[in-house]
Amino acid sequence: MLYGSIEAGGTKFVCAVGDETLEILHRESFPTTNPEQTMKDVVAFFKPYEEQMAGIGIGSFGPIDIHEDSPTYGFITSTPKVAWQNFDFVGMMKREFSVPIAWTTDVNAAAYGEYRFGHGQDVDSVVYYTIGTGVGGGAIQKGRFVEGFSHPEMGHMLVVPHVDDSYKGNCPFHGNCLEGMAAGPAIEKRLGKKGADVPETDPFWLIEAEYIAQCVYNTTLMLSPDVIILGGGVMKQTHMLEKVRKAFTKLMQGYVQTPPLATYIVTPALEDNAGTMGCLALAQKVACSTEK
Amino acid sequence: MLYGSIEAGGTKFVCAVGDETLEILHRESFPTTNPEQTMKDVVAFFKPYEEQMAGIGIGSFGPIDIHEDSPTYGFITSTPKVAWQNFDFVGMMKREFSVPIAWTTDVNAAAYGEYRFGHGQDVDSVVYYTIGTGVGGGAIQKGRFVEGFSHPEMGHMLVVPHVDDSYKGNCPFHGNCLEGMAAGPAIEKRLGKKGADVPETDPFWLIEAEYIAQCVYNTTLMLSPDVIILGGGVMKQTHMLEKVRKAFTKLMQGYVQTPPLATYIVTPALEDNAGTMGCLALAQKVACSTEK
Repeated sequence: MLYGSIEAGGTKFVCAVGDETLEILHRESFPTTNPEQTMKDVVAFFKPYEEQMAGIGIGSFGPIDIHEDSPTYGFITSTPKVAWQNFDFVGMMKREFSVPIAWTTDVNAAAYGEYRFGHGQDVDSVVYYTIGTGVGGGAIQKGRFVEGFSHPEMGHMLVVPHVDDSYKGNCPFHGNCLEGMAAGPAIEKRLGKKGADVPETDPFWLIEAEYIAQCVYNTTLMLSPDVIILGGGVMKQTHMLEKVRKAFTKLMQGYVQTPPLATYIVTPALEDNAGTMGCLALAQKVACSTEK
Repeated sequence: MLYGSIEAGGTKFVCAVGDETLEILHRESFPTTNPEQTMKDVVAFFKPYEEQMAGIGIGSFGPIDIHEDSPTYGFITSTPKVAWQNFDFVGMMKREFSVPIAWTTDVNAAAYGEYRFGHGQDVDSVVYYTIGTGVGGGAIQKGRFVEGFSHPEMGHMLVVPHVDDSYKGNCPFHGNCLEGMAAGPAIEKRLGKKGADVPETDPFWLIEAEYIAQCVYNTTLMLSPDVIILGGGVMKQTHMLEKVRKAFTKLMQGYVQTPPLATYIVTPALEDNAGTMGCLALAQKVACSTEK
């Protein structure tokens, strides 16, 4: 029995096949171009495993339609990526593979990976953020994604401009929301180079940490989760985590007693595998729940 | 069979007794002074019903300890109200009445009331805010409170200062957080009179609406609930709701397609009964779940 994972990101699709212990047997990436080309690669990747496949988990960039009773369930909906607007992702996969399919956002999938196998495995609730090309967040409480009329879009929460930051933000919708101020492109536009090339000593990182700390602060007050996991390219700057914790402590002013920050504000235990592991686990879950 | 409700607020305790249909048979309020005095009133209120009482629901001001495996479960913890710090509320009630007790925050109780009998009765997830002497929020998804290491403290989320507002905020912890900028005392300190006495035409209400809209915006992005219910004294200004909806629309810039605002951003269907109805329903729920 095998499970499939599709991490559908804005830059690349990572496909993987795992066995019953969710050990990854094969993994490959394909560029995110348009549905015709990219999905051809995806289908070709899974076809050799079709006979043994018991379920597929998809974690997709969004916005996506997550309501099973909706006529557009399983679609990528109003994404700025024009080629992918209104793409019937789940429907297309179901036509190619007659297996149960789990469908959620890319960040929810990563949150689920951490919840099951990473920092969340001993607690009830986790929030996972990716801070990279964009900012996105997903939350789980007792195995269930936090959602309602749709999935969260946490990356666009409001942030208070830092006193030493004159940048106006580059979110096409909100200007200076979290993503507009703290995602990779905003760093690059401010400093004229990619974040990965900005030295640890650059004072900008304190500003960046302050924005991320505002996000962690608001998340603490809104969801009060057991752990907040910060993933994505920006957090690969290993000096950032401690800066975020310090800025968070200053913002909170002792008002809420969180768990110790060493276990409360963390980077992913599964590193870059959180999404794939989450999708595989969701595939297994949907396969089990639809077994005869 | 009767159920008891205690809405424990910072100003008054509202006690009520309801029957099996949750119709309120008797209700009385007592001033919030200190645990000795106030709890004497509370106990005296319920004693005549002791024999028939099947459960009591408590919605308390906080912060409170909600973890059943904690040694201080059922306590009011680090409240600024010194007399109530570390008060063993559930323990005290259990010593007086040998019935199951449901224990949550005042805003969670109101959220539950609306979820069961008000705006939330046909949907899966609700968020309830009170904007009055303070600002607090509670969220429910599929019958379960959104919580983790503790309950949310939504009233202290960050807000972006309005361009026409020079007030620095009066939250003793965070200065210009939502509560520090938008709760009743902040209005009174700015304008020199209570909000109830400020005319509808005062331009300040547009500033107030903008802060509340920021709260609704962040809530939409973080939780994506089916409905956001705005209660409390400030929202009794009937002109406010439409102002908040307008400011929200401007903030959102069409990024997320929420349900229609007429059903998405609303005032409590149960008006001032949301808390009592929520506590009674929680009392019934805890009584049923512990029946032999």
